[in-house]
Amino acid sequence: MPDAVDLIRAKRDGLPLAEADIAWLIDAYTRGVVADEQMSAMAMAIFFRGLGPAELRAWTGAMIGSGQRLDLSSVPAPTVDKHSTGGVGDKVSLILAPLVASCGAAVPQLSGRGLGHTGGTLDKLEAIPGWRAGLTPGEFVDLLSTVGCVISAAGEDLAPADRKLYALRDVTGTVESIPLIASSIMSKKIAEGTQALVLDVKVGRGAFMRERDTARELAATMVRLGTESGVRTTALLTAMDVPLGRAIGNAVEVEESVEVLRGGGPDDLVAVTLALAREMLALAGIEADPAEALAGGRALAKYREMISAQGGDPDAGLPAAQHAQVVRASGSGWLRDLDALGVGTAAWRLGAGRARKEDPVSAGAGVICLAKPGERVNEGQPLLELRTDDPARFARALDALDGAIEIGAEPAVISPPVLERIG
Amino acid sequence: MPDAVDLIRAKRDGLPLAEADIAWLIDAYTRGVVADEQMSAMAMAIFFRGLGPAELRAWTGAMIGSGQRLDLSSVPAPTVDKHSTGGVGDKVSLILAPLVASCGAAVPQLSGRGLGHTGGTLDKLEAIPGWRAGLTPGEFVDLLSTVGCVISAAGEDLAPADRKLYALRDVTGTVESIPLIASSIMSKKIAEGTQALVLDVKVGRGAFMRERDTARELAATMVRLGTESGVRTTALLTAMDVPLGRAIGNAVEVEESVEVLRGGGPDDLVAVTLALAREMLALAGIEADPAEALAGGRALAKYREMISAQGGDPDAGLPAAQHAQVVRASGSGWLRDLDALGVGTAAWRLGAGRARKEDPVSAGAGVICLAKPGERVNEGQPLLELRTDDPARFARALDALDGAIEIGAEPAVISPPVLERIG
Repeated sequence: MPDAVDLIRAKRDGLPLAEADIAWLIDAYTRGVVADEQMSAMAMAIFFRGLGPAELRAWTGAMIGSGQRLDLSSVPAPTVDKHSTGGVGDKVSLILAPLVASCGAAVPQLSGRGLGHTGGTLDKLEAIPGWRAGLTPGEFVDLLSTVGCVISAAGEDLAPADRKLYALRDVTGTVESIPLIASSIMSKKIAEGTQALVLDVKVGRGAFMRERDTARELAATMVRLGTESGVRTTALLTAMDVPLGRAIGNAVEVEESVEVLRGGGPDDLVAVTLALAREMLALAGIEADPAEALAGGRALAKYREMISAQGGDPDAGLPAAQHAQVVRASGSGWLRDLDALGVGTAAWRLGAGRARKEDPVSAGAGVICLAKPGERVNEGQPLLELRTDDPARFARALDALDGAIEIGAEPAVISPPVLERIG
Repeated sequence: MPDAVDLIRAKRDGLPLAEADIAWLIDAYTRGVVADEQMSAMAMAIFFRGLGPAELRAWTGAMIGSGQRLDLSSVPAPTVDKHSTGGVGDKVSLILAPLVASCGAAVPQLSGRGLGHTGGTLDKLEAIPGWRAGLTPGEFVDLLSTVGCVISAAGEDLAPADRKLYALRDVTGTVESIPLIASSIMSKKIAEGTQALVLDVKVGRGAFMRERDTARELAATMVRLGTESGVRTTALLTAMDVPLGRAIGNAVEVEESVEVLRGGGPDDLVAVTLALAREMLALAGIEADPAEALAGGRALAKYREMISAQGGDPDAGLPAAQHAQVVRASGSGWLRDLDALGVGTAAWRLGAGRARKEDPVSAGAGVICLAKPGERVNEGQPLLELRTDDPARFARALDALDGAIEIGAEPAVISPPVLERIG
């Protein structure tokens, strides 16, 4: 039987770990035989030494094997999912799942809740009265077959080793490791049973990956891992220096998503959504133009069907915050910058996000961007609208916005929403 | 208040930690506010990033400050101690403490028990009927003043942070870090209150440090740390490729120590002991020839006084093992090698050492080297005598000796016992 200390020392000293040793380690950790303090030392050693391709496959496979893998073989349509590494105002899943399903693919999306300054898809959908995130595996597969798209919470039995390891990494300074991030994301997506996957790797100040080369390395690692595991996988690097779209929060992002599904909405949000939709349809082997599905109302109809199927009322009014405050332009000129991290942190502090995973979120809280970089503004013109249920939160939200807005005499160069394709 | 995750991430990313942050971290860890899994991640980050001189001073100071520092100011003689990083057959403390005390210095030695293939000074002395390792701080200081030397167990209140951290490092693959080793050793020695300290850093296959350059780095780090903390400190690097002396065990090492104190004993053991004694006396500012103290019987008299003062009977017979087995030369020629790790492991498996810290040790078990490298041997001649209370242990001891003995046509070059001085 392997010994945890020997394996930690081997990784620490740059020696590769054998597949059987990794399988033992992950299983023993999940069962509590390998202690948290041993696994955190291993995670830190991996931060410095990395994992080679064979180690990463074994690590990811062991995390998948710690729970049940969903069987989607009964679903008649080709299955394809999307995963985003998280950004400010990133409501793309709400539009993309019904859009791609309306073109003939099946979209099985097991999603998460938000922690920190980026929101969670489930938190957003839960702003819709009646909608429920919790489905049994049987309900999930049924809805995928009948509706064609389903967004729900991952069950306790989906890669439980990842859940335990992620919580450990969060408190031990070992989150920022490309192989550990890649195996965490991919173990859940592979266990979900999808045939194909498109990764939206966000890059910039509001994203987890701030540097383009690190984002590219993460994307390439995940694409290789997915492909080697039999999941057709590609990735887009997309910009996350400024918020995506104009709404940041829960109910406000649902509203903006419906706007796009009606054929409108902000250009950057539409561009990212369509680019991801085209990747997904290509991987599913479906020839269809997602822009037509948006314009023709088919995507909106599928969205309403998806919401209704999970108990939600697509016609219900959404919760609104009780208090609003406007941030105005301090001068006239070009709006050159609107820092996504500052805006995301402000929305979080207004109540849209949670600091601890057991905290509730406010459905109505958030930030509306009344102007975006690239537009001309005049002094005193409203730039942001802050919304909250608790006016005591405005002060700390405004602190987060300190230095986030830049107005100048010349327009700034705005990076395109889609930066690069990996696959 | 600092945050443990921020400090781990800072160290991980190569940023120096502030003195106040280190003080908080060690204190919070001792109190259980910083969790084991956080401290092990920090230790692994330190393995990779090291600690700068100011960080190391702060880290060591915080470990000293986690408990009580002994006050030896009432001791009339200059105080000087010795610490060895541990080797096979290393019974030097038993000889050195009374030898140096017989020359006029006071030797305050707080010592430990053995774990693994190197023995512990307290285990050896406990082979003497009646001798007790546990003294109160008051008894310790009294004996130091009246007898001039005392070897006893460190109390619970001596650098408790080190005790907790050492146990954690042992199970998390983070033992082999020079700053963590240096701070662990030096925090205990500085807290002990000695004015001067000589370090015996063992180098070779039977030592913790196998490479000379790593041993030199550890020695230099500890000398600097001691000096900066007001303890006059020097170090000798000494050879640990073959066992020191001829006896490896508990009672057998006491017997060999007495042999040296009577003016006899193996040359290598006498050479290392005298070199360390000269360093200690020089640091204590005492002009005396320790070889004369050995030859004239003063050191032996002091040894008998030291043993008696702690309840031991220096005239009592020592426990003997019930079973013996001889390992004979497989051919004729020069004995070229006798691997210290193999011999140490054999003695350990015969019962002289412990695998877990709660295990008892056998007083009589061990190995006697009937020949040492540099001697001519004939086929069938006894080379080693293995002793144990449990004959079932012979087989695993013989396994440890597989490949440990080399006989050849030419004599091997034997390295000198004292390799280098640092200070």
